[in-house]
Amino acid sequence: MSKVFVTGAAGFIASNLVDRLLSLGHDVVGYDNLSTGQMEFLLHARDYSNFRFHQGDVLDFPALCSALDGSELVFHLAANADVRFGLQHPRRDLEQNTIGTWNVLEAMRQKGVRRLGFASTGSVYGEAVVVPTPEDCPFPVQTSLYGASKLAGEGLIQAYCEGYEMQACIFRFVSILGERYTHGHVFDFYKQLVEHPEVLYVLGDGTQRKSYLHVGDCIDAMLTAIDHPQRKSSVFNLGVDEDCRVSDSIACITEYLGLRPRIEYSGGARGWIGDNPFILLDTQRIRSLGWASRLTIRESVQRTLRYLSENQWVLDRR
Amino acid sequence: MSKVFVTGAAGFIASNLVDRLLSLGHDVVGYDNLSTGQMEFLLHARDYSNFRFHQGDVLDFPALCSALDGSELVFHLAANADVRFGLQHPRRDLEQNTIGTWNVLEAMRQKGVRRLGFASTGSVYGEAVVVPTPEDCPFPVQTSLYGASKLAGEGLIQAYCEGYEMQACIFRFVSILGERYTHGHVFDFYKQLVEHPEVLYVLGDGTQRKSYLHVGDCIDAMLTAIDHPQRKSSVFNLGVDEDCRVSDSIACITEYLGLRPRIEYSGGARGWIGDNPFILLDTQRIRSLGWASRLTIRESVQRTLRYLSENQWVLDRR
Repeated sequence: MSKVFVTGAAGFIASNLVDRLLSLGHDVVGYDNLSTGQMEFLLHARDYSNFRFHQGDVLDFPALCSALDGSELVFHLAANADVRFGLQHPRRDLEQNTIGTWNVLEAMRQKGVRRLGFASTGSVYGEAVVVPTPEDCPFPVQTSLYGASKLAGEGLIQAYCEGYEMQACIFRFVSILGERYTHGHVFDFYKQLVEHPEVLYVLGDGTQRKSYLHVGDCIDAMLTAIDHPQRKSSVFNLGVDEDCRVSDSIACITEYLGLRPRIEYSGGARGWIGDNPFILLDTQRIRSLGWASRLTIRESVQRTLRYLSENQWVLDRR
Repeated sequence: MSKVFVTGAAGFIASNLVDRLLSLGHDVVGYDNLSTGQMEFLLHARDYSNFRFHQGDVLDFPALCSALDGSELVFHLAANADVRFGLQHPRRDLEQNTIGTWNVLEAMRQKGVRRLGFASTGSVYGEAVVVPTPEDCPFPVQTSLYGASKLAGEGLIQAYCEGYEMQACIFRFVSILGERYTHGHVFDFYKQLVEHPEVLYVLGDGTQRKSYLHVGDCIDAMLTAIDHPQRKSSVFNLGVDEDCRVSDSIACITEYLGLRPRIEYSGGARGWIGDNPFILLDTQRIRSLGWASRLTIRESVQRTLRYLSENQWVLDRR
């Protein structure tokens, strides 16, 4: 059993990770500034006596150091997770994703914590020239501030691992779906259709091909990688071996809701600047460690819709 | 003729660039905090009426914005350029290279300046798995805070170019030699031999293979790339098509000085953590634009030694 520190603990993925770690018997300290996290997501965790929560910001270095002290393993998931609106506030990704990650690394170094799991993103591949995209694909070009800020975090982690004998697993996610999902296009579409069932406004032409992974499968993969120790740092793509068009997920959503809205597309092949028209990651590396996804994209979308319909309060929090 | 803004203007490479730009008739504004730059390097530039100098830090955003206002092209060369000592002050590279580059980009955006040349580094390739290393080599792993901080700068630049319709040339340098050279192993070896001609202490076992480029060739290459406009961002390796062992450059230096010192090696194949035992870049991309290097490594080392012997004052400034 380990003492595990989780940043962004009240967020979608991290709160699911916290629950899993607690169910496995680990001591868990959650850290979150509650800017987008929801304390409701930690109600289950708070039933455990071996869970503690600190409200704090990764940009508050002294608070971070103090909260992290005594941990053996850190999962750093606190981030500005919104890829789409980066251009509207160009300093946010730098601060929350790059400087925030440096703070976590430096706090770990100062407190002697050596093991790290980091939530990066498939967005670091930009518009990949190889699809399905492996971890060692050709050196990519960044197309979003979000991807650039996460790539910067990856590089800092690798350099810290090289220089200070730390060990890290870097996870490049596709979009994650499932319980406590609170942003992304399934969320946006669902919310639109609850508010105006007759019409759905879609960025892009619906032909963008994306891949999705269920949060439970995502956490299985993260823990599988963490349990296979390696020297220095490793990068793992996390995703399923299928993709679907935006128009397919729209069909899945309208079918689930029993609606036949008018669909209004805008823009071209890219929904917004920096949007990637085709995301599919090669996940052979994590699968070679024995992990496999259990849910299809369709099942993940359906579970997400069920969660949203049973927890409509999350629609009003954004 | 353009209005050109040069950061780090009093540094080794940038001051040579300033002189060249002035000789071509451009209006040049130099910006430098003089933390490692030398005003002596701008004595020639100050003879030109179309040169202005601002002492300022790229981390001082208002001062940077004000100095940069009205420019048409920015060369961003201000940086913490010391790869070797990153682990001794792990925030310095983040601040000076990553946050500093973000400040330059944001100042450009706010002031409507759209064209950028950026001094990155071959260190972003870490220990490359392909040598000679092309720009689109397999996605590398960072081995130094310096490389990580420059890679972060590259990513920010690419994302700004994508999002805000800017245009950038990113230059990944090998080590640069020549007039006004003030740090690196030729400098260290020369300084040691001036101080104690009988013994030379060398980090590593002397078998590290490195490549070097003369500062004049480097500036030719930068201006060649800038003169070939491209949409968004481009990356160019800058180097020569040969490498030499550290022991070879030692031989060149001792021969130049007429010394036969005892040579004491320490450490293994890597001189320090993050040192790369073999650096050689594939420069086909920049050569396809018509550029070619004019000086060999040996000639560059000799010119550097001549400069140092004629300008011994620089030995005392570090």
